[in-house]
Amino acid sequence: MNYADKAMETHKKLRGKITVNTKDSLDSLEKLSTYYTPGVGAVSDYIAKHPEQTRNYTWTNNSVAVVSDGSAVLGLGNIGPRAALPVMEGKAMIFKQFAGIDAIPIVLDVHTADEIVEAVKAIAPSFGGINLEDIAAPICFEVEKRLKKELNIPVMHDDQHGTAIVVLAGLINATKVAGKSLEDSRIVCLGVGAAGTAILKLLFKYANPKELIAVDSKGILSSNRDDLNPEKYELFKFTNKGDIHGTIEDALVGADIFIGVSKPDVITKDMIKTMSKDPIIFAMANPNPEIQPKDAIEAGALIMATGRSDFPNQVNNALVFPGIFRGALDNDVEHITDEHKIKAAEALASLVEHPTKDLIIPSVLDSRVASVVAKTII
Amino acid sequence: MNYADKAMETHKKLRGKITVNTKDSLDSLEKLSTYYTPGVGAVSDYIAKHPEQTRNYTWTNNSVAVVSDGSAVLGLGNIGPRAALPVMEGKAMIFKQFAGIDAIPIVLDVHTADEIVEAVKAIAPSFGGINLEDIAAPICFEVEKRLKKELNIPVMHDDQHGTAIVVLAGLINATKVAGKSLEDSRIVCLGVGAAGTAILKLLFKYANPKELIAVDSKGILSSNRDDLNPEKYELFKFTNKGDIHGTIEDALVGADIFIGVSKPDVITKDMIKTMSKDPIIFAMANPNPEIQPKDAIEAGALIMATGRSDFPNQVNNALVFPGIFRGALDNDVEHITDEHKIKAAEALASLVEHPTKDLIIPSVLDSRVASVVAKTII
Repeated sequence: MNYADKAMETHKKLRGKITVNTKDSLDSLEKLSTYYTPGVGAVSDYIAKHPEQTRNYTWTNNSVAVVSDGSAVLGLGNIGPRAALPVMEGKAMIFKQFAGIDAIPIVLDVHTADEIVEAVKAIAPSFGGINLEDIAAPICFEVEKRLKKELNIPVMHDDQHGTAIVVLAGLINATKVAGKSLEDSRIVCLGVGAAGTAILKLLFKYANPKELIAVDSKGILSSNRDDLNPEKYELFKFTNKGDIHGTIEDALVGADIFIGVSKPDVITKDMIKTMSKDPIIFAMANPNPEIQPKDAIEAGALIMATGRSDFPNQVNNALVFPGIFRGALDNDVEHITDEHKIKAAEALASLVEHPTKDLIIPSVLDSRVASVVAKTII
Repeated sequence: MNYADKAMETHKKLRGKITVNTKDSLDSLEKLSTYYTPGVGAVSDYIAKHPEQTRNYTWTNNSVAVVSDGSAVLGLGNIGPRAALPVMEGKAMIFKQFAGIDAIPIVLDVHTADEIVEAVKAIAPSFGGINLEDIAAPICFEVEKRLKKELNIPVMHDDQHGTAIVVLAGLINATKVAGKSLEDSRIVCLGVGAAGTAILKLLFKYANPKELIAVDSKGILSSNRDDLNPEKYELFKFTNKGDIHGTIEDALVGADIFIGVSKPDVITKDMIKTMSKDPIIFAMANPNPEIQPKDAIEAGALIMATGRSDFPNQVNNALVFPGIFRGALDNDVEHITDEHKIKAAEALASLVEHPTKDLIIPSVLDSRVASVVAKTII
């Protein structure tokens, strides 16, 4: 049985993958009068007078909303809020399993940046953090930027930063194995949606690589492109120092590192062959990579990472978001900064004591991961 | 230790009274690939094509949002969303304990009817039902009316209808004990906010009583009042057939039933003495009743009900809302109607096989309650 069939079967059987439980049983009038009226009135009255104490008397010290409008779900695209719900429930499972966080899926029936921001701001007092998820670019950038500014709880768009942090962790170890350095590398990123944008920004911040080249479906982001939206123009301004023009094929000539967050099967063996010696390939398209690992290796790739669990070196956001929010909640961190992301990536990379070409990223089942990441969010 | 102290202590210790749990452990890559990517993609794809199947593959068949803007919390008034959160968590505990429902507290940082409606509509696909809670009148009426119209999941403002249903159940048994009938009674309701309005409407619908008199802080709703807002004018139109004027004191002369959803200590023994023989007193103000049970009995009251657990005959919404939503979720009922409310009240009343003056309402700990109420929501 393949995963699709198995998923349909188990989801139909469970009818929801998460459940809300009480921390104590309400089996006496005394408990009802303590947890609910009249006793709870004293707690509400206290919080009304000391709002900064909310997290000490409610679950906001441990609750995170997983918010999506369903506009960019997995490889499925804009499938809407209801169809996004199984993904958000899965994310809530991961939050609980790996970091003990109470995560609540909130799928939104609104889709403009203004509407999403207003809805999230309206419900924000209910939670200790906001994990934005599967919101399409470029709206996701404005939504995250405004919410970070206007809320005083941690807000993170995981498709951007979760992905960027795992990619950076993987590249730290991959360059070590390959005898390369990020600073001296030519790095090509194909796909400049949520993930690609955040990866490029974090790599620039971390290593300011010799050559950092962003490529979208129309080619290299360069000065002769007159179709760049403001977000892509921002990317162009700090990438492509040599201002080269052309396609992904042109970009890859002599490149040390390829990062794909685009579409399945868009990279050929011939393209890999034009790259520098021992190239590093992170092909993370959903549900299938930009090039199959077997083909990439045959064409000369030294290290191959994908988003999938059935190949070595899985780039999986589940390595990051549980620990990030665990740290933010425990340490009352209101803003996840670039410094946090870099420290988290370094901590994650350090869990692989002896990196090899088939082991640059820890397993998502490695029980040390969430707490090691959490410790960097201070 | 009093309930206030005990509540402060237990809330500080628990730091949140509810938690989200996974229904299965994510302890293998296979489970991760089934509950999350890549497997979950098949479920999302299926729901995108068959949105009516959402409830069979997600927790929306069992999840209810407990939504409040914190504008009318217990006897505390407008204390805002954060301070309302302990109450909503308590409500979520009750939903789980008594009906197995996954309830999620959603406290809103917005307060106009438009904003509340927009926020709830935005998050509605996340849930199987909406329990509105502690939203001040008259905004609560517009919010509920619009959400009932614009959403295709059950929406109920519990302060209105939960209270009205328990009051009706209690009155069905109380009139039996007192040898009165609702149809032939003079019924006075003091307080015409959310609860009072719904009680009056449900009593009118159920029994069209001989005299039904609504009283607010300025006196009887009558034709000489020029200060009635549209909601109160609606009430006036079907109450006070004799168009009497005056104060609560005037209204109570000769009355059979007093229903108080107003403020503590506003009814005197002298007022009770002017009522008809064997009067029925439901004094449900928070946190203390309109008149103490001891005083009411001394002044001639036959039956005394309050909102408190430390006196007999507790009028407690927890007898109603868990079962109402259990029934609505299980039977896919999109709209809770007046007929549902009447049937629920009758079913609740019937659980007291031999009503006496000290036993007109079942205990909230009676394990039959939720399922008996749920069976009426079909």
